[in-house]
Amino acid sequence: MSRPRLLLLSSSVVHGYGFLEYAAADINTFLNKNRVSTVLFIPYAAVDHDAYLAKVSPTFSKWGYQVEGIHKDDPIEAVKRAETIFIGGGNTFLLLKTLHDLNLIRVIRQRVLDDGVPYIGSSAGTNVSAPAIHNTNDMPIVFPSSFEALNLIPFNINPHYVDSDPNSTHKGETREERILQYHSLPSRYPVYNVLALREGSTLYVDGQNAILKGINKARLFLRGKAPQEIDVGTDLSQLFAYTLKSELQSMQL
Amino acid sequence: MSRPRLLLLSSSVVHGYGFLEYAAADINTFLNKNRVSTVLFIPYAAVDHDAYLAKVSPTFSKWGYQVEGIHKDDPIEAVKRAETIFIGGGNTFLLLKTLHDLNLIRVIRQRVLDDGVPYIGSSAGTNVSAPAIHNTNDMPIVFPSSFEALNLIPFNINPHYVDSDPNSTHKGETREERILQYHSLPSRYPVYNVLALREGSTLYVDGQNAILKGINKARLFLRGKAPQEIDVGTDLSQLFAYTLKSELQSMQL
Repeated sequence: MSRPRLLLLSSSVVHGYGFLEYAAADINTFLNKNRVSTVLFIPYAAVDHDAYLAKVSPTFSKWGYQVEGIHKDDPIEAVKRAETIFIGGGNTFLLLKTLHDLNLIRVIRQRVLDDGVPYIGSSAGTNVSAPAIHNTNDMPIVFPSSFEALNLIPFNINPHYVDSDPNSTHKGETREERILQYHSLPSRYPVYNVLALREGSTLYVDGQNAILKGINKARLFLRGKAPQEIDVGTDLSQLFAYTLKSELQSMQL
Repeated sequence: MSRPRLLLLSSSVVHGYGFLEYAAADINTFLNKNRVSTVLFIPYAAVDHDAYLAKVSPTFSKWGYQVEGIHKDDPIEAVKRAETIFIGGGNTFLLLKTLHDLNLIRVIRQRVLDDGVPYIGSSAGTNVSAPAIHNTNDMPIVFPSSFEALNLIPFNINPHYVDSDPNSTHKGETREERILQYHSLPSRYPVYNVLALREGSTLYVDGQNAILKGINKARLFLRGKAPQEIDVGTDLSQLFAYTLKSELQSMQL
C-alpha cells in the first residue's frame, strides 16, 4: 500500500479571492505532476449536485481540466475509472452519509491508496480524508451510519480553524477548547491527533513527503501536548509515523 | 400525556453574569412553583462528572435546593425518584451518547411527560429536549447511536445563536446559513422547525403555555418561511400546535 497523493484544502474560498483562486497554483502543480486531464467531482456535501457541478466546472475548465460529476453516472463505476478525485466542501455529515449509503468509502480508499489516484479535498472533502469526522465544524443536519471516514491519513483535520477572539462576549466554546475537549475523552473513545487548517492553509502529501502549503499557518494538536503553530513550508512527514492509536507518543517538530 | 414543564436555557453563562446568574429569577420561580426541594443533576455533557457536580451544587445550594448527581447512583433509579431534572451544558454528542448508552431516554421522557417532573436544560441539555440534536453547534467528538433525543417538544433548538458579523472575513457558514441548509434537505430526511436561542434567551413551557423569557431575543426558523425575530415575552404556544411532520403548515405569530 503506497502513501496517498493528496492536496487537502481548508476551504474553497478565502477572503479576497475567488472560488479556489488562492490555491490555483497548488492545484495546477498537483494535477500537472500527476498528468491528469479529467477530474471526478463529488458534490455530495451540497444538497443540489447539479448546481454544485455547474459552479466547479468553469474553474477547472479554465485551467484545462475536464470535470465529471459522480452523480451523473453509476458512482462506484465512476470512482473505478477516475483519473483524479475532488471532493468539495459543504456539510460534512451530508457528505459522509452519502459516501456510506452509496458504499463509496472502500472503493475511493482503494483507488487512492492502492492505485495512487490523486485526491483533492476542500473543507468537508478534507474532513472525510481523515480517519473520522470528529473534528468537523458542521451542523449535524443528517445522521450518518458512522463517523468513520476515508482514513487516507492517520490524523483528523479541523478545517476553517479560527483563533479565539479575546474581545468576544460570546460564551460558546472556542475552537481550541473544542479540540482539547476531544483530546480529554476517556481512553475507551477513539481519539486522533488533529491538524487544524486555518482558511488558506493546505496539507500536501506526496509519497514520502507531507508539507504545509497555502497562504496561512496551521495549528497542530497532538494529544497530551501543548498546541503548536505550523508555518507554511513546514515538513509534516513525521505525522505519518504515528500509527492510528499511538497518539500519546512524543513527537518533536 | 400532559404537556411538559420545561425551562430551556440557551446557556449557563452570559457575558457579565456568573454561572446561571442571569437566569436566577426564572429558575427560582420555576422550581418554587413546582414545589421542588431537590434537583437531579445530569452532568453527562462533560467528561468529569464529579467536577461538574461540584461546580453546579453551590449555586443551587445558595438558592436553597439540594443537588444530587445522577452518576452517584443507579441512573435509571435516580430518574425514577427525581423531583426535578437539570441537564447541564457541554458537548451535546457526549451527552446524547451517554443518555442512549445508559437507556435513559425513555425513562426521562416518561417522568417529564407522564409524571410532570419539571425539567431544566442548559445549552446541550436544551438541545436534547428536542426531537433530535440536528441543530447543535458542538463538535461531534463521539458517535451516538442516534441523533434522536428526548422529544419533549415538537421542534429543534439551536442554542448560543449568533448573528452573522458583516465585518467578518471568515468564510465558514453563518449560523443562519447552517439552519437554512438543514431546512433545504430533501423530504426523505427528518426536518423540524428550529427555535434559535441567543445567549440569555430561555423558553419556558408550562402546561398549555410557552413563552420566551430571559434577557435576549430569539430567532424562529419555520421551514419554508423567512426567519422571524421573537421578543422576550412572546407567546410561543402555537409552536406546540405543529405535529412532528407538519413543518410546512403555515403559522402566524
